[in-house]
Amino acid sequence: MAKNHETEHPVGAFGWAARDTSGVLSPFNFSRRATGEYDVQFKVLYCGVCHSDLHMAKNEWGVTLYPVVPGHEIVGVVTEVGSKVNKVKPGDNVGVGVLVGSCRECDQCTNDLENYCAKQILTYGAQYTDGSITYGGYSDIMVAHEHFIIRWPENFPLDIGAPLLCAGITTYSPLKYFGLDKPGMSVGVVGLGGLGHVAVKFAKAFGTKVTVISTSIGKKKEAIELLGADEFLVSRDPEQMQAAIGTLDGIIDTVSATHPLPPLLALLKPHGKLIVVGAPEKLLELPAFSMIAGRKTIAGSGIGGLKETQEMIDFAAKNNILPEVEVIPIDYVNTAMERLLKSDVKYRFVIDVAKSMKSE
Amino acid sequence: MAKNHETEHPVGAFGWAARDTSGVLSPFNFSRRATGEYDVQFKVLYCGVCHSDLHMAKNEWGVTLYPVVPGHEIVGVVTEVGSKVNKVKPGDNVGVGVLVGSCRECDQCTNDLENYCAKQILTYGAQYTDGSITYGGYSDIMVAHEHFIIRWPENFPLDIGAPLLCAGITTYSPLKYFGLDKPGMSVGVVGLGGLGHVAVKFAKAFGTKVTVISTSIGKKKEAIELLGADEFLVSRDPEQMQAAIGTLDGIIDTVSATHPLPPLLALLKPHGKLIVVGAPEKLLELPAFSMIAGRKTIAGSGIGGLKETQEMIDFAAKNNILPEVEVIPIDYVNTAMERLLKSDVKYRFVIDVAKSMKSE
Repeated sequence: MAKNHETEHPVGAFGWAARDTSGVLSPFNFSRRATGEYDVQFKVLYCGVCHSDLHMAKNEWGVTLYPVVPGHEIVGVVTEVGSKVNKVKPGDNVGVGVLVGSCRECDQCTNDLENYCAKQILTYGAQYTDGSITYGGYSDIMVAHEHFIIRWPENFPLDIGAPLLCAGITTYSPLKYFGLDKPGMSVGVVGLGGLGHVAVKFAKAFGTKVTVISTSIGKKKEAIELLGADEFLVSRDPEQMQAAIGTLDGIIDTVSATHPLPPLLALLKPHGKLIVVGAPEKLLELPAFSMIAGRKTIAGSGIGGLKETQEMIDFAAKNNILPEVEVIPIDYVNTAMERLLKSDVKYRFVIDVAKSMKSE
Repeated sequence: MAKNHETEHPVGAFGWAARDTSGVLSPFNFSRRATGEYDVQFKVLYCGVCHSDLHMAKNEWGVTLYPVVPGHEIVGVVTEVGSKVNKVKPGDNVGVGVLVGSCRECDQCTNDLENYCAKQILTYGAQYTDGSITYGGYSDIMVAHEHFIIRWPENFPLDIGAPLLCAGITTYSPLKYFGLDKPGMSVGVVGLGGLGHVAVKFAKAFGTKVTVISTSIGKKKEAIELLGADEFLVSRDPEQMQAAIGTLDGIIDTVSATHPLPPLLALLKPHGKLIVVGAPEKLLELPAFSMIAGRKTIAGSGIGGLKETQEMIDFAAKNNILPEVEVIPIDYVNTAMERLLKSDVKYRFVIDVAKSMKSE
């Protein structure tokens, strides 16, 4: 017998959920668990709209459990903490990103890499340790184990900052891990959406020279004037691409639509690194010879561990790195999803949950 | 007007060359330059037969200039040195590998990575700084700038050791650069030919646990008993491959025939590295999602710089790492090439140049 979402747990909750592959979101009454001894309960204030939310709402990855309440760029204010929680107290601002659980014991977890734990638990659409399904931040209340809670820096905007919890760490982590954070380096960013525009800001903050690589010349002015990029390459212009061969130390590729990688590989200097953070469904195609001739690397990277996520948020606050966002009410979310699909957003939607989400 | 190979330079030389895409080699009279002030001239004693020699003899990479004298695993004894040469003296044993020149000024060269210099000059089939074409080690005499000369370790076998100058450095360098040289690590080696069997020996000498991955169970006994591998995986056995998922820190893939990479990527632990040193002609196909989910790397690597090649030879001598070879006379070379094409060699042919190459 299917569990009743409303009565499964003791704490009443309200959100917006998709019920089927249409991906259309609508009001949804459900419940959250009581605050356990290591748990932090918080009132959700804002939640970013990640492209993953769209994929999951429509079951495009084939793993969605309906009804699904998306949202994994969640910020809010603590309402209750368990008896053994030391990290935060009621009234503190906090965040939850892509993960709410992991095994805490494996090599990955013990090295602060919960994001690569085989037993990681996603913030929504996954089975939690108690057997119930996790629901994300398109909802009025949230609860999570303190290990997966991010302390929000003082005086750091909650609304504009929310997308850092996924888009921020997804680009910060590979820039650090693959050594593309050294002043004077030349770093390329492919795609100028939710991930890409934050990648530009972090790469600039690290002191690198940033080249945006995009199919559309239309983004050039904003890339340079608003986001602070140094150069702009139109990937469909063979002459521009030819002139830039062998000039980049690394590239963060944020594009999840299928696109040719050999021209990007050609932009790298010897020993350069092409880091894929967007995930095209088709297999990537790569020329072995040009990888060998320049000892070039292609690698993937997915979000970051909790320790690094905290470090990223603290770095962002210190360096005033903030996404560009359009704040929307929850009843605009279906239109926002349609616009997201057309890349018609600069550069991230953030839902004003506290102000707009009212149970009916 | 085409230059006359026999009279272009003052020093008479004799070798075996391929004249056309048949790749068939036959006796060839040519000439070598006079020993310049930084040059080392040496009598060739032995030369390994690399798979590249076969590709080049048949112009399979489309870059061959005929006639081509192959051979870039060359060892011999110094006969003459230029006035400014300090590195070696007549009577010393020396080697020349894949390179005889580079710009010596670029970022790569100044970092001892001549193998990634855009102006590198290959040991055969390339244009030298004086405009003449380079000829390789299937010949009785050799001359090279001292920078590209490897000092041969005392008491280290010349015949068996020769293949280290390409096969050795091609596998040693990525094991070191990609950090796969730490005792206790698990390293996979795909393919058990000229490169692969040496990769096993180096990886073992570094103290790693070595798993050979091969299409053929027939190679298991030798891989373990002769070469010292710890494990053997038949890549066509889905159960064996399934059981080994997520167990390897890195893989050196030496296979140049097209083969599926996703199953190899699956064998890697999170943050594992798949290093391609064989170059399939078709584009490599890779699943973005599994790279991202495990922060996995695929990279290429080609030979090594001169400093590292010397280090590799010295390490091999100290640790008694020697390829398995079949020594042949030059007039067997066409048969050897046919056998090489069928992988019918354990594991490298070496031509006994001094004993078998006689001008007619």
